[in-house]
Amino acid sequence: MDQMLKPGETLEDLQRDGLMLIQKERGFRFGLDAVLLSDFAKIRQKERVLDLGTGSGILPILLQAKSDAEKIVGVEIQRDFVEMAQRSVKLNRVEGKVEIIEADIRSLTMLKKASFDVVVTNPPYTRANSGVRCQDESKDIACNEILCQLEDVLSAARDALCVKGRFYMVHRAERLVDVMALMRMYAIEPRTLQFVHAKKNKKPHIFLVHGVKQGGKDLTILAPLILHEADGSWTSDVQQIYRREHSK
Amino acid sequence: MDQMLKPGETLEDLQRDGLMLIQKERGFRFGLDAVLLSDFAKIRQKERVLDLGTGSGILPILLQAKSDAEKIVGVEIQRDFVEMAQRSVKLNRVEGKVEIIEADIRSLTMLKKASFDVVVTNPPYTRANSGVRCQDESKDIACNEILCQLEDVLSAARDALCVKGRFYMVHRAERLVDVMALMRMYAIEPRTLQFVHAKKNKKPHIFLVHGVKQGGKDLTILAPLILHEADGSWTSDVQQIYRREHSK
Repeated sequence: MDQMLKPGETLEDLQRDGLMLIQKERGFRFGLDAVLLSDFAKIRQKERVLDLGTGSGILPILLQAKSDAEKIVGVEIQRDFVEMAQRSVKLNRVEGKVEIIEADIRSLTMLKKASFDVVVTNPPYTRANSGVRCQDESKDIACNEILCQLEDVLSAARDALCVKGRFYMVHRAERLVDVMALMRMYAIEPRTLQFVHAKKNKKPHIFLVHGVKQGGKDLTILAPLILHEADGSWTSDVQQIYRREHSK
Repeated sequence: MDQMLKPGETLEDLQRDGLMLIQKERGFRFGLDAVLLSDFAKIRQKERVLDLGTGSGILPILLQAKSDAEKIVGVEIQRDFVEMAQRSVKLNRVEGKVEIIEADIRSLTMLKKASFDVVVTNPPYTRANSGVRCQDESKDIACNEILCQLEDVLSAARDALCVKGRFYMVHRAERLVDVMALMRMYAIEPRTLQFVHAKKNKKPHIFLVHGVKQGGKDLTILAPLILHEADGSWTSDVQQIYRREHSK
C-alpha cells in the first residue's frame, strides 16, 4: 500500500465487494453515468472487453466484479490517469483480469483488430468548440471532445469489435442524432436504447445505447429509467442496479 | 350533400368544431397518431403547409381548424382516397384553405421547390419486404412502405421546404435510427423528439419528431407523452390535446 495515494488524490469506497477506486480530488470524478453503464452492459463468460477512454478505470473495475470476462482492457490517453487507474487495479488485486494501457484511441495500433467481444465507453459528452470549457485541463479532456470526438470513438470501436460484437455507451440526450447517425455510419447498428430521466415527467438528460457490429436494423426502446422519486430519494430501479452490482 | 357518401364509406364526427371526415369502412382509418401529430405540429399565421400521403385528408382538416395557415395541400397517390378526401374538404366547406391533389410523392413535379413553410406526414410505418402485409390493398399501401419509403418522404420534404422550414412526423419507435439518420442525410435536422407510451413504465411505441431544414444540431427530447392511466382512462395530457384541438 506504500505510496498508493499521491497528493491531491482520494480513495473512494465503491460500496460493493470491497472495491476501491483512486480518484483525483479535483478534475473529473466518476459518477452515476458510469454505474448505470456498467449495469446496462451485458458481459458473458470468457469475453474480451475494451473500455475506450477509461479515465480512473471505474468501468473495468466495476465490470470485472459483475462478470466472468476473460480480460478487460481500459485505454486512456492522459498519462496521470493511466498511472492512477493502474494503481486502482493493483489495490483491488485484479491485475489478472484488468489491464490499463496508455494510448490514443485515434491510433490503437497495439490492439489486434476485431479481437474484442464488447466495447464500452463513457466518452466526452460535449461537442468540440461548443464554447463551454472546464478550468481543470484533465476534466476538460474528459468532458469535452478535445482529444477524441464521437467519430473517433466509433471508429475505434468498429475496428476493435469482432463481427456481431456488442457496443455499450452512455451519452447526453442532445447528442442522440449524432450517436444514431454515426453508429450506423460505422456499422455499429443501434439495437437497444434507454433514456434516463432525473424524475418522471422530466426530459431525459442522458441515454444508454447498445449496438451490434453489422447487426440488423431493429431498435428496441426500453421503458425509461427514472432516477429519483418526487421526494428526491432513489427509485427502486436505481436501488436494484446498485444491489445487482454487488453480486454477479 | 347528395352522393357525399359512397357505398362502403362512413361519416366520422371529429368531435371538434363540427368537423366531419369521410372514411372507408374497411381499409386504413385515421387514428390517434394523426391527432397527436396535428397537435405537435406548430403552424403560424399565413404559412403554407404540405401533408405528404394525406390519405383521408385527416391532417389538413385538423390543421386548418387549429391554425391560420394560408394554404394546406394534401398529396395522395391512391385515387379513391384523393376523391374521398376532396369530398371531406367540401363537406367541411374548407375548399379555400385545403387542397387535395393526386400525386406520387416520388415525383412532385407540379409543386414549386422550397415553397412550403411546413411539411407534415404520417407515413407508412413498416419497412418494405418486412413480410407483414395487409389483405386490404389500400390499407397495405398506407401501413407498409410499398409505394413510398421513408427516404422518398424525406426527399420530397427537403425539396418542398424553404430554408429553415419545419418538418413534423409521427413514426414507429423501432424506426428511430432510420428516421434520425435519414433526416440528417436529407438536411432536415431533428430538433425536437417526443416518445409516446401507452402507459408509464412501458416502452414507447411511437414518437413525434420536429426537424428544421438546414437547422442547427441541437436536439431537445421532451418529457414522454403517456396516453393512459393505470386504469386505462386517458391521461390529462391527452385530454388537453383534444381540448386544444377544439379551439385555436
